[in-house]
Amino acid sequence: MPVSPVDSPTDLRATAAAVAARVETAMHADLDLALAGCDPLLTEVLHYALFNGGKRIRPLLTVLSARCCGRDDDRLYLLAAAFEYLHVATLIHDDVIDRAPRRRGLDTVATRFGLAAAILAGDWLHARSMHLIGRLTGAEGLEVFCRATSSMVNGEFEQLRLVGDLEAGEEEYFKVIRQKTGNLIGSACVLGALFAGADDQRQRALATYGDHIGTAFQVVDDLLDFRGDQQATGKQTGNDFAEGKITLPLLHTLARATPEERHTLAALYAGDRSSEAAYRQLVALIEHHDGFTSTADVARQLIETAIASLAPFEQVDETQASVGLLRDLAGYILTRTR
Amino acid sequence: MPVSPVDSPTDLRATAAAVAARVETAMHADLDLALAGCDPLLTEVLHYALFNGGKRIRPLLTVLSARCCGRDDDRLYLLAAAFEYLHVATLIHDDVIDRAPRRRGLDTVATRFGLAAAILAGDWLHARSMHLIGRLTGAEGLEVFCRATSSMVNGEFEQLRLVGDLEAGEEEYFKVIRQKTGNLIGSACVLGALFAGADDQRQRALATYGDHIGTAFQVVDDLLDFRGDQQATGKQTGNDFAEGKITLPLLHTLARATPEERHTLAALYAGDRSSEAAYRQLVALIEHHDGFTSTADVARQLIETAIASLAPFEQVDETQASVGLLRDLAGYILTRTR
Repeated sequence: MPVSPVDSPTDLRATAAAVAARVETAMHADLDLALAGCDPLLTEVLHYALFNGGKRIRPLLTVLSARCCGRDDDRLYLLAAAFEYLHVATLIHDDVIDRAPRRRGLDTVATRFGLAAAILAGDWLHARSMHLIGRLTGAEGLEVFCRATSSMVNGEFEQLRLVGDLEAGEEEYFKVIRQKTGNLIGSACVLGALFAGADDQRQRALATYGDHIGTAFQVVDDLLDFRGDQQATGKQTGNDFAEGKITLPLLHTLARATPEERHTLAALYAGDRSSEAAYRQLVALIEHHDGFTSTADVARQLIETAIASLAPFEQVDETQASVGLLRDLAGYILTRTR
Repeated sequence: MPVSPVDSPTDLRATAAAVAARVETAMHADLDLALAGCDPLLTEVLHYALFNGGKRIRPLLTVLSARCCGRDDDRLYLLAAAFEYLHVATLIHDDVIDRAPRRRGLDTVATRFGLAAAILAGDWLHARSMHLIGRLTGAEGLEVFCRATSSMVNGEFEQLRLVGDLEAGEEEYFKVIRQKTGNLIGSACVLGALFAGADDQRQRALATYGDHIGTAFQVVDDLLDFRGDQQATGKQTGNDFAEGKITLPLLHTLARATPEERHTLAALYAGDRSSEAAYRQLVALIEHHDGFTSTADVARQLIETAIASLAPFEQVDETQASVGLLRDLAGYILTRTR
């Protein structure tokens, strides 16, 4: 394999794989320690939930952020693992809430091990993740992390309230996804910086970066729900509509629709949302108003802002490779297909 | 009302009420702060779950432990509130797991607000509680707290495994209840001591105290499940049997039963456990072997050990009142009827 130039997409993939491997090693070691003498079922459930080919994007962000700020040692991968724990805890509980039988082609924890195991394993991971954050970044880090987890829960509540509400505006939409994803991705970056002893300016820069790529991630999710390749995403398209979720392509379309079309959209959301015909009618309306194109434009703008926020790191020669990888990662979020 | 002598049961009730009021004030203030700008439903769910006439025993233990070690200020009640948050988070998730429609005569959070709200509100309280613990007691306190929450989850898993298993011994039974309750009650005491800057000896003494009264609490729960006054407990008797839970009166009876009686007991647990006749037959067998009496003896011994562990506090004049209240509280756990 030819050596790839620094900051190339190949380099991002190689770095992501290497970081994921170290994070997984850290998770295995931490679980061995934390689960010594514990119930074998708890151990089995946690391993099932954690080691299933996850992309480990959150840990990668923590690692790259710390590297940008000049620190890279073994403890960093344990800190990064804490973000994967929280992420997986969230997925497990989300699947319980959504009563989802499968996730990305595999049985969910609740399907495989039952409701009690799913709720308890999520709680365990949540606790362990905060435990590690507190130990590795002190009260200041815990504060950042807990603000992000509280905001995540609040975002979920606001989202519940918005289900099927076609009067919700873009402002409310962005508030929800920023709380659900942006803040937490931002905190994965900020804690990497904090761990590396970065100053306020660099912490804020990485917070902005993380917040914007996290928000872009959700916007792209909205698009993939309509246009994703089922093989690649492991998800059916049209789920958001079936659940009555208000997403950005819909909001853009509503803003441009004639009164009559708005009436049609309202009827579609109030009607049988599992109907294939209703879904096709919705897609046609969004396409007619370029809702997918303009949603993709929003994602692109968010990614541009994220990349611009990395400016404070431009002058430091020895961390240019990591800054470049953060840029590439932002770009990947825009073009991802799963 | 006449002034009651220090350390009398009346004093415990009065102190418990005064502490509960301050803890509730602290919770209200903390929620106002933490929930500023949050979704109104999240606020409503949390208030519903938290303010329902709970006994606030865990916060009381934190407060009395800190007082025994010479500290009592406003921040103490916020630390105490963190234990109530965790306790309520656990109750909410437990009720989801048990699919319980009601708790102590009130709709559970899941019944009232739905599954999503229940899981998320539990997660929010869990996060907030760790946040406060980390802020108020630092990494050392967080370590103690997280060990206790992990052990609680592990205890739940071990309990799942023991359901209906009549081969389980007393050792496994005590391991489960110590993990589920003892450690956490112990940590409520230890963190009070840690918060007050107590030395290791006093921290260990309070850990032993808390662990033993917590374990006794569960043993008494086993008794109340058979013999409690439904009006007082707000629970039906016979729940544990219906769920196939292995409790101490049963274990004592199994140890004393003839082979034929063991066979009968196994048949009762393998059969229709919702049958009134089966339940009555079980109660008769336990009574025949004095299983209730000997279970009560175990609870009494645990309480005696708890009280004896307070010896290191006997010499300090200015904290005698609080030590006396811890003693009374231990006694209350033995005689409680709900």
